[in-house]
Amino acid sequence: MFEVLSAAEAERVTALYAPLADAVRELIDATIRTEVDDDVVHQARTTIEAVTASLRQRTRPAKVSYRVDGRPLPLGNAAIGVCNPIAAPIVVQHDGGGRCTSDFVLGSAYEGPPGLVHGGVSALVLDHMLGEAASEGLSKARFTGTITVKYLRGTPLGPLRCDAWIESAEGVKVFARGTISDAAGVTVEAEGVFIEPAWARESQ
Amino acid sequence: MFEVLSAAEAERVTALYAPLADAVRELIDATIRTEVDDDVVHQARTTIEAVTASLRQRTRPAKVSYRVDGRPLPLGNAAIGVCNPIAAPIVVQHDGGGRCTSDFVLGSAYEGPPGLVHGGVSALVLDHMLGEAASEGLSKARFTGTITVKYLRGTPLGPLRCDAWIESAEGVKVFARGTISDAAGVTVEAEGVFIEPAWARESQ
Repeated sequence: MFEVLSAAEAERVTALYAPLADAVRELIDATIRTEVDDDVVHQARTTIEAVTASLRQRTRPAKVSYRVDGRPLPLGNAAIGVCNPIAAPIVVQHDGGGRCTSDFVLGSAYEGPPGLVHGGVSALVLDHMLGEAASEGLSKARFTGTITVKYLRGTPLGPLRCDAWIESAEGVKVFARGTISDAAGVTVEAEGVFIEPAWARESQ
Repeated sequence: MFEVLSAAEAERVTALYAPLADAVRELIDATIRTEVDDDVVHQARTTIEAVTASLRQRTRPAKVSYRVDGRPLPLGNAAIGVCNPIAAPIVVQHDGGGRCTSDFVLGSAYEGPPGLVHGGVSALVLDHMLGEAASEGLSKARFTGTITVKYLRGTPLGPLRCDAWIESAEGVKVFARGTISDAAGVTVEAEGVFIEPAWARESQ
């Protein structure tokens, strides 16, 4: 399930493939909003299919993830993977003491109601950020038990911020909280219980 | 905020742009898993940037959505938009009586832990499906108030099913529940409260 990389190799892989993911993010935005005619669309499809085939000449098997220095390097993660074009990506800053923040921008690809972030996308961001806080930056195995997300008002597409922190801990359970905010304040808040699995406790 | 389409025009737009989004979905999967060399990556980036520019020759303004027969046509929706490459997409079947289901496949783009669906992606799917149930297929304005998602075990990447239904209603509130299942049974369950906004009540 894991392929172990040296720090230098991890840096090389990220520097090579992250800009490719950035180019695909721009293509996603253009695809959603394009109104070009049939001939341009058909040419685009043909060209994209050829690029896909060229990238598939050599691929990692599905379900194989990278590790560096015993920690996951989640390049393909759906929320924070810099090599996953569907991730914004969320870039997480850990401030110590189980507190983390992220400033990020959500564009057309994350829309639900017109002009607003899809409520489920807010839930995705909060689930990830509370997990980051609870697991001290994914360095500990802690899985979401339950998360509750409360929507205070619509979250506009554009620049946003997420804050998450550990509220308390009790045996194998860690309680975390977090918020998403726009320039005018908090739009969504969440609380979650994260659980250390038995195999992680036994290996300590 | 809305551009009104005739049914025929909606069909033309969907038939033209949905296959383009499909091609980009395949490109996303290839981008995440590729291990090709620098020269192939650089050629891919250059080609993708040219396609993006060709699609941007004519675009809808951001935040403009389509409506057909007074109902939203959410082609760009982050969960169900057939023209949004980040959407799986979830194709929702409404069975009447506030009950809906979807069979869908989640690949590498939706990964959290190795081989498993990102917990936040499960929350996104459930938020959307409970909203579909509560709003009778997005035909009524009902916004998520609070949603609670409980993770019973890891959800494997691959073929999945989501069920959602209205549990009860009380004044302006609708209570909905739902589950995600793999072949072995339920992996995640959710309950949510959906609220009819004041402007929707006043317009009735």
